[in-house]
Amino acid sequence: MHDVARLAGVSQSTVSLVLNGVQGKRISEETRARVLRSVAELGYRVNSAAKSLREGHSRLIGFVGDMVASTPFAGEIIESAQDRAWADGYLMLIVNTGGDRALEERAIDSLLSRQVDGIVYAAMYHRRLKVPPALREVPTVVLNAETDDESLPAVIPDEYGGGRTAAQHLIDQGHERIGFININTLASKLPAAVDRERGFVDAVEAAGLRLDRTLIRHGDGDAEAGYRHACRLLSRKRRPTAIFCGNDRTAWGAYQAAAELGLRVPRDLSIIGFDNQTLIAAHLRPGLTTMALPFAEMGRRGVASLLSGSSASPIDAVNCPLVERSSVAAPGVDA
Amino acid sequence: MHDVARLAGVSQSTVSLVLNGVQGKRISEETRARVLRSVAELGYRVNSAAKSLREGHSRLIGFVGDMVASTPFAGEIIESAQDRAWADGYLMLIVNTGGDRALEERAIDSLLSRQVDGIVYAAMYHRRLKVPPALREVPTVVLNAETDDESLPAVIPDEYGGGRTAAQHLIDQGHERIGFININTLASKLPAAVDRERGFVDAVEAAGLRLDRTLIRHGDGDAEAGYRHACRLLSRKRRPTAIFCGNDRTAWGAYQAAAELGLRVPRDLSIIGFDNQTLIAAHLRPGLTTMALPFAEMGRRGVASLLSGSSASPIDAVNCPLVERSSVAAPGVDA
Repeated sequence: MHDVARLAGVSQSTVSLVLNGVQGKRISEETRARVLRSVAELGYRVNSAAKSLREGHSRLIGFVGDMVASTPFAGEIIESAQDRAWADGYLMLIVNTGGDRALEERAIDSLLSRQVDGIVYAAMYHRRLKVPPALREVPTVVLNAETDDESLPAVIPDEYGGGRTAAQHLIDQGHERIGFININTLASKLPAAVDRERGFVDAVEAAGLRLDRTLIRHGDGDAEAGYRHACRLLSRKRRPTAIFCGNDRTAWGAYQAAAELGLRVPRDLSIIGFDNQTLIAAHLRPGLTTMALPFAEMGRRGVASLLSGSSASPIDAVNCPLVERSSVAAPGVDA
Repeated sequence: MHDVARLAGVSQSTVSLVLNGVQGKRISEETRARVLRSVAELGYRVNSAAKSLREGHSRLIGFVGDMVASTPFAGEIIESAQDRAWADGYLMLIVNTGGDRALEERAIDSLLSRQVDGIVYAAMYHRRLKVPPALREVPTVVLNAETDDESLPAVIPDEYGGGRTAAQHLIDQGHERIGFININTLASKLPAAVDRERGFVDAVEAAGLRLDRTLIRHGDGDAEAGYRHACRLLSRKRRPTAIFCGNDRTAWGAYQAAAELGLRVPRDLSIIGFDNQTLIAAHLRPGLTTMALPFAEMGRRGVASLLSGSSASPIDAVNCPLVERSSVAAPGVDA
């Protein structure tokens, strides 16, 4: 600041007024221009630590996640949250806790000591969880999870709507016997599994079709289980003409079962997945029609709700859009 | 601080000495304990902005990446870099530039104004690039890219070694006619493509095998191209008994071609990939043997080199380890 003032031939307080954007008659346009030229010449850089102390806020958003690096979801949710923050001039401080509670507590403490203006608390798979009490000290939004604390806004995928849309898409093509291979046993109460299944059941019943509970099976989300359950469903005397798979890996297993049984997708069997894991869905032959998990949209909305300071609805269920490829057609019809 | 001092019945300077961990005879253990109890009671939190101003460094690491959210690599490299920083008490400020130069310049400016102690500049695919000049103001390490600036340490995958190891693994199993479907044309000079191919050629020649250049083909890294090139290679009169694929998606295409031609993997055709994209490699049947890209290790080493302040070697080529599954065996042998 001292050097800028000397080069521009003005006082330090004039430099300060110009840099802080104070508009007033006391500084001529010519002086302002001279100060800015000197700043550019000297490469003067605002010290954000000093600015943050003076202004009492940091323009930092904290991001606490229990990431699993090998899923593409981590990158998607971080990137979209960061992009949204950056659009308003905020930077994002990121901490991965790996789900470790003690580490999480220290991480949140560290974020709070840096005067973050808000915290995004993100779960890498949709579940119900307790948030650490320290989060109550600062505006917080929870991504991809529901919490016991109703005062905290949460942004989650609309699993129910996704399940219902997937089933409806098959029904619209004329399928009446539809199998469902869910991603886990109902016992574990994973919201993704429970709500997608509710959506499936409601769509079938709303269409006036007979709900055959023996067509609903529970895998573990892996291709292997998808393969095994699909083999069983497809070996029945009256086999389903379509299968809704609780995720794309399960759908991959269903493709393998169909191939082994000499059934062609979609002519002999329509398959619809969930997650839209592009690496799988776009590369299966034929391409897998599936429901997308709205990670990017959740990241954006979460940060937007922090920045706006308003949260009209405590829980924001984001639409899971249908991504059409070539694995669904009317029974007996090629794509 | 004032409140802590009052509650503990000591002076503010005593509180400051205790909190800054100054060891000395002047403060009794009893006083120290009383101060810490008062701190806990009041929920006093260090103001990092003030601390950073006082100490002249921020314990922040900046991370600038041109992420592509849909690849799992983004998550892996961010998570490992952040974990390594956090192990030394550093937090990571992250900015995604999407490859936009103007945005990148503003982002780096913003990181510098926050007095980051160093910057990790990460490319999402291995390439040669120019780094923005502002990075010279602070210790910087480049991940997954080579730069024109030899003063900057860079951490890259050892593509040459990976290509050589992959070919050697096939040779060790007794293969003599080995096809190679690379991920792009040589014209584009992608280091991954050029160096993997050099490694392949050197391994074949070092083993005293005849190098048949017509067995080397150039796809575009997609399953579709892998399928097409594998069909050509496998329709030759003297077909190769093994194919090295420049990435796992290409290998997936080779599986599809083998299935269509009635060839069994690995008995009739061994296939080895590159990248170890778990979502593909672990779920193909049989599981794909492939070379892993060391993203996690690169993230760790990059941050470690920033924190240590030393960079013995300007370019650190990290080993790409062989990940064995079930797609490679001796010619004519089941896995």
